[in-house]
Amino acid sequence: MKVSVFERMSALATKHGAVNLGQGFPDFGWPPEILEAAAAALRNGSNQYPPSRGLAELRAAVANHYSRHQSLALTAEEICVTSGATEALGASILATVAPGDEVILLTPAYDSYAPMVRRAGGTPAEVALRPPNWRVERQLIEAAVSPKTRAIIFNNPHNPTGRLFDLEELQTIADLAKQHDLVVISDEVWEHVVLGERHFTPLASLPGMAERVIKIGSAGKIFSLTGWKVGWIAASPDLAGVVARAHQFLTFSTAPNLQVAVAYGLTEGDAWLDPMRQRFARACNRMTEGLRAGGYEVLEAASTYFLCVDLDASGIAVSDEEFAIAAVEQAGVAVVPLSAFAEENACRHLVRLCFGKKDETIDAGVAAMLKAKEIFS
Amino acid sequence: MKVSVFERMSALATKHGAVNLGQGFPDFGWPPEILEAAAAALRNGSNQYPPSRGLAELRAAVANHYSRHQSLALTAEEICVTSGATEALGASILATVAPGDEVILLTPAYDSYAPMVRRAGGTPAEVALRPPNWRVERQLIEAAVSPKTRAIIFNNPHNPTGRLFDLEELQTIADLAKQHDLVVISDEVWEHVVLGERHFTPLASLPGMAERVIKIGSAGKIFSLTGWKVGWIAASPDLAGVVARAHQFLTFSTAPNLQVAVAYGLTEGDAWLDPMRQRFARACNRMTEGLRAGGYEVLEAASTYFLCVDLDASGIAVSDEEFAIAAVEQAGVAVVPLSAFAEENACRHLVRLCFGKKDETIDAGVAAMLKAKEIFS
Ligand SMILES: CSCCC(=O)C(=O)O
Ligand SMILES: CSCCC(=O)C(=O)O
Repeated sequence: MKVSVFERMSALATKHGAVNLGQGFPDFGWPPEILEAAAAALRNGSNQYPPSRGLAELRAAVANHYSRHQSLALTAEEICVTSGATEALGASILATVAPGDEVILLTPAYDSYAPMVRRAGGTPAEVALRPPNWRVERQLIEAAVSPKTRAIIFNNPHNPTGRLFDLEELQTIADLAKQHDLVVISDEVWEHVVLGERHFTPLASLPGMAERVIKIGSAGKIFSLTGWKVGWIAASPDLAGVVARAHQFLTFSTAPNLQVAVAYGLTEGDAWLDPMRQRFARACNRMTEGLRAGGYEVLEAASTYFLCVDLDASGIAVSDEEFAIAAVEQAGVAVVPLSAFAEENACRHLVRLCFGKKDETIDAGVAAMLKAKEIFS
Repeated sequence: MKVSVFERMSALATKHGAVNLGQGFPDFGWPPEILEAAAAALRNGSNQYPPSRGLAELRAAVANHYSRHQSLALTAEEICVTSGATEALGASILATVAPGDEVILLTPAYDSYAPMVRRAGGTPAEVALRPPNWRVERQLIEAAVSPKTRAIIFNNPHNPTGRLFDLEELQTIADLAKQHDLVVISDEVWEHVVLGERHFTPLASLPGMAERVIKIGSAGKIFSLTGWKVGWIAASPDLAGVVARAHQFLTFSTAPNLQVAVAYGLTEGDAWLDPMRQRFARACNRMTEGLRAGGYEVLEAASTYFLCVDLDASGIAVSDEEFAIAAVEQAGVAVVPLSAFAEENACRHLVRLCFGKKDETIDAGVAAMLKAKEIFS
């Protein structure tokens, strides 16, 4: 296993005092009420082991949240709280992938998927989505299915491309999963960070999918608190049970005061969601405009904290990795090279920038990006 | 993987409204200052991703703590913060055990060891310690070593027996590890919960062991805050690096406000340790006396939150599991059957009780134990 690209770029940002647009975390946006709820629970609540599957109030709050927002008919039995979405992914992979299994990944893909599939004894089968549209193409995925295929790891809205897949693409995943009897680990952590008018559809809402989807969610992304590491899985009682048993031996449980606060936020905080989305959309526009004014070709993002810059189309003729190193060392801005999101057929002409930042951070980052452009002109 | 015995017994305790002496968590003892430090950091500190290996201040605090208390010459480079000791164990096992490897476990053993070794592709080789002395015997372990042996998982002080192994026993582990070139995952989470005058010696302090020990520690156990799930590993820079890379993909990182508070506690809280130990020793005595007065045979505990009751010697002629179910369902007290800590050659005549409780909890638990005794007399 190698060092995660996010950790590597954040460490370089710190080392060089660069603006950190690499790792995905916002520098605004957390509701003060939720911080107070967590502080109050530290003082007045339990600080001892909660149940391994999560506090009953949080499991109910997650189930109700999805019933309300996504018409998923979930009960608390179908929820297992985890120490962030990374643990949810780890537990889901360790619970479902056995030695010899193959697992389909659509690349670019978050950098824990492949190493965890391998550590579970499985083999990742990468299917490369192609820029600038990053469309899920049935034939490409179909070609990657073998008798050994056990699961697909799907990610919608999609990091790093910012795509919100359309219904036809979701249907493709659903059809293949049903046809080949696959589990789908559906990483939906960006479900609420949707920038435009389009609507997010959970994969589990498609006919016949509730029983084969492990849906992954993240309080860190909903409440702009990425450090809290409170996440969850939602799945049929059987699948949820299997994941919960792997989770027991990964972290056992998650700090109860943070769970109490997240339950409060999911129950009382619906009114926070729209302003949050609008604030991220505004940040995305500001960064996009700044980069375009500076001669960068920017791909459109429909969701997530991220946009991608096309180096080639911006007249920069070096690889993403080379650009990223020069940008952080010489221009003062950390970005993430897209090649880190694939092991085969990686894109080498795109870099990802986190736009979830205050105006002054965005402006400083854009200025540094213009400096980086000069280095290669 | 099956449901953890701790989760199972806690759920039964809740269901039957029983006194919960099963799962190991105290109902007293956390320093209020550390709760305030965590609350302040929620408001004034970052709630975004800390570095995956932990906040620099916590890594330094852990290293300094061990340099001060255990004469281990550690630097922050040798520390990786994890989401509790369970994650530290998981990351250590996933980082060091490859398919085909054998891993020696001394049973009774914490119930995540064997399933995680298996999930890593390894095979647990159990060596049964025997009551009432639970001595580490060189020949027994030697007999379990094969050319495929890669690691030993050692636990000192020992849960569930409460043993603090002596220097000769530590030397046995060290000799075997060096002779057969094994890594030792040394679960030392109870290092500060020592009840008498005896001194805890970390395995890594034995000659030649610093380079092959992965030491596991837990803030939850040091500060009586088991729900916080802040733990760490300490190991040579190479080993720590390998564990840190597995950790990235298990949880990535741990809530920064809890890390800040633990760093504060480790730096400023040395004066909390002796009173904490004395308080647990007093609780242990109270429970031991109560049980003995009621005709129970209690084994002596030198450390941990736990004591063991010998059912056989107490005139109770049913298995530990049968006793535990009757105790929680009919007598109103949850305990843990020792057979849950081994897959082979399990002891079936002992149950574990958590004594780390307030007087009234202890008294209610003892009264319920006397009721349980009547059921079987
Ligand atoms: C856990 S670090 C990665 C955070 C993230 O979602 C990203 O930067 O893609
Ligand atoms: C993580 S639940 C188990 C807690 C504990 O250390 C024990 O009860 O042995």
